[in-house]
Amino acid sequence: MSIVFERQAHPLGIHRVLEPEGAMPQNAWKLDNTPVALENEILCEVETLNVDSASFKQIADECGGDAEKISRHIAGIVRERGKQHNPVTGSGGMFIGHVLKVGEALRSKVDVKAGDRIASLVSLTLTPLHVEAITRIDVATGRVWIRGKAILFESGLWAKLPADIDEGVALAVLDVAGAPAQVQRLCREGQTVVVIGADGKSGVLSCAQARARTGASGRVVGIVLDDTTASSRLLRDTNLVDELVVADARNALDVLEKVAAAAPGLADITINCVNVPGTELASILSTKQDGTVYFFSMSTSFTAAALGAEGVGKDVTMIVGNGYAKGHAATALQTLRDHPALHAYFNDIYARVPEQRI
Amino acid sequence: MSIVFERQAHPLGIHRVLEPEGAMPQNAWKLDNTPVALENEILCEVETLNVDSASFKQIADECGGDAEKISRHIAGIVRERGKQHNPVTGSGGMFIGHVLKVGEALRSKVDVKAGDRIASLVSLTLTPLHVEAITRIDVATGRVWIRGKAILFESGLWAKLPADIDEGVALAVLDVAGAPAQVQRLCREGQTVVVIGADGKSGVLSCAQARARTGASGRVVGIVLDDTTASSRLLRDTNLVDELVVADARNALDVLEKVAAAAPGLADITINCVNVPGTELASILSTKQDGTVYFFSMSTSFTAAALGAEGVGKDVTMIVGNGYAKGHAATALQTLRDHPALHAYFNDIYARVPEQRI
Repeated sequence: MSIVFERQAHPLGIHRVLEPEGAMPQNAWKLDNTPVALENEILCEVETLNVDSASFKQIADECGGDAEKISRHIAGIVRERGKQHNPVTGSGGMFIGHVLKVGEALRSKVDVKAGDRIASLVSLTLTPLHVEAITRIDVATGRVWIRGKAILFESGLWAKLPADIDEGVALAVLDVAGAPAQVQRLCREGQTVVVIGADGKSGVLSCAQARARTGASGRVVGIVLDDTTASSRLLRDTNLVDELVVADARNALDVLEKVAAAAPGLADITINCVNVPGTELASILSTKQDGTVYFFSMSTSFTAAALGAEGVGKDVTMIVGNGYAKGHAATALQTLRDHPALHAYFNDIYARVPEQRI
Repeated sequence: MSIVFERQAHPLGIHRVLEPEGAMPQNAWKLDNTPVALENEILCEVETLNVDSASFKQIADECGGDAEKISRHIAGIVRERGKQHNPVTGSGGMFIGHVLKVGEALRSKVDVKAGDRIASLVSLTLTPLHVEAITRIDVATGRVWIRGKAILFESGLWAKLPADIDEGVALAVLDVAGAPAQVQRLCREGQTVVVIGADGKSGVLSCAQARARTGASGRVVGIVLDDTTASSRLLRDTNLVDELVVADARNALDVLEKVAAAAPGLADITINCVNVPGTELASILSTKQDGTVYFFSMSTSFTAAALGAEGVGKDVTMIVGNGYAKGHAATALQTLRDHPALHAYFNDIYARVPEQRI
């Protein structure tokens, strides 16, 4: 029997936690996945699960890449935990679907209604999920088509899927939506911005926002490991950066010297989008006194950043990249619309129909 | 032969790196410890090394607690690496001494002159050190008396030791000087500030600064695991907090409920001074939308903070505690002078003469 209806609805979804007691939905072992919306919940019909790549790879490996076995494995996790929360990797993913019902208490508060197609922007590790059937799996991309329902809490995040942007492209952009939104918020006219890892997905979006925000009097320096890639060419050919510097961000001294050559006063703001460890010091050294370092890379070491700044006597504000910022989904998608060449580049990479291996 | 004199002096001390090539002083295996000040260096006569506790414990354990063996071990590390950089723990410590010479190029730039007694505020892991003799070791505290010399780089940090504050107390305060300085900088009149781990060394100093900065219209809530300790009593009896809440910061939900009871609008600024892992979510949940979380705890997990905020849809600015802020040493020491009861508390704990075991 469900206990959902016996508890007071909590904005964070704590009323859905079955075990252990005192847990939050994300660190709970099991959630109540009763597919009915309480007054502060949103009930969605799920179309696809986009299982995160670490989780899907682990499951696929365990199942020898067999789609039928993967399907049973995923269904088993959801049956046991009430959510697609891989117990081995600890990770989840997101879903795409459409809204079935918005709870009464939420209707006047949220800009979404029954019928809207949305992508969830909170992890599947905290999303109550009820699977009726798994109908198709794309082993190459970790995408899983299902019949089922999910619950979004009052504190949950989602984005309406835009009609003018390919779904695969929208998902790719929403995955890193925090980066361009935070860059837009941080940067000011005339500033010097250094983007480390400028040629990655979050990097090119960050460069586009930094270039737009800092204006003609500003300066955007992109740091890449290789300036011959398609994304590096995009950055240069469409002026998303003022200068492209080739350097290995793990070599702090080399980065410092090259940044100092490109922007002698160093950066007002440095954005770290690199996905390798050991780039904290390069980020700190690239930044002027009283400047800001924004670490969007999930491979950032907290202690390396904290001790690194102290070790070189840099009084900089170091910010932990928050995947969420108000309006981040809209900002990220608008970045594509504002930059047709960037949009075309994303279409080339993410809009293709994935090969079906089932 | 020294190669110091053949290289261009670099503000970060890179000219002192002997191996490997391309390393910074901190991650270098070996530094040139020639005890002569180049034009942008400060040469100091060292009195004591305060070896960091993780490092000293490892060395003491390896030497069976024997002061003579510990002495030889430490001398060996410095001889091999040119710095007191424990290769096992990777950590260092700080030194106390007095200035022998300020390089010509620095004299007009720095507020220190020959004869001044100082404490170094950069790690021994990046400080060229030349040891002539180790004269005494206090095994209980990890303090090592030496005859020797150290070099501070242009980018280095130090604090003049005040005449009116006990040396042991000054060291204890300087060790966490970043916390009260950052709190002073962040907090504004009328704000609500939550200090998690309010009863630790950095916690009580942070509470004192938060209380002073937020004024009569502000509110400071301290969170402690135990409100019967001497520091908890100090916080309450001398009004360094408006309310003391007993909670385990690893239980995010419990903290949220208690903070919401003490400050219904939640915190404008939350300061995390706890030295246990797993307190990121409690910090995030204690903070209102658009608020700021300052992680001073070195046990903070970058990913737990980044994913935690996204998971609960909190648009908060999360800052990595920087051990350095301009004027941090002066601010931290002044916090003691401004709060006689706090000063007396620090005297009780840190001003006693340590037991000599040698």
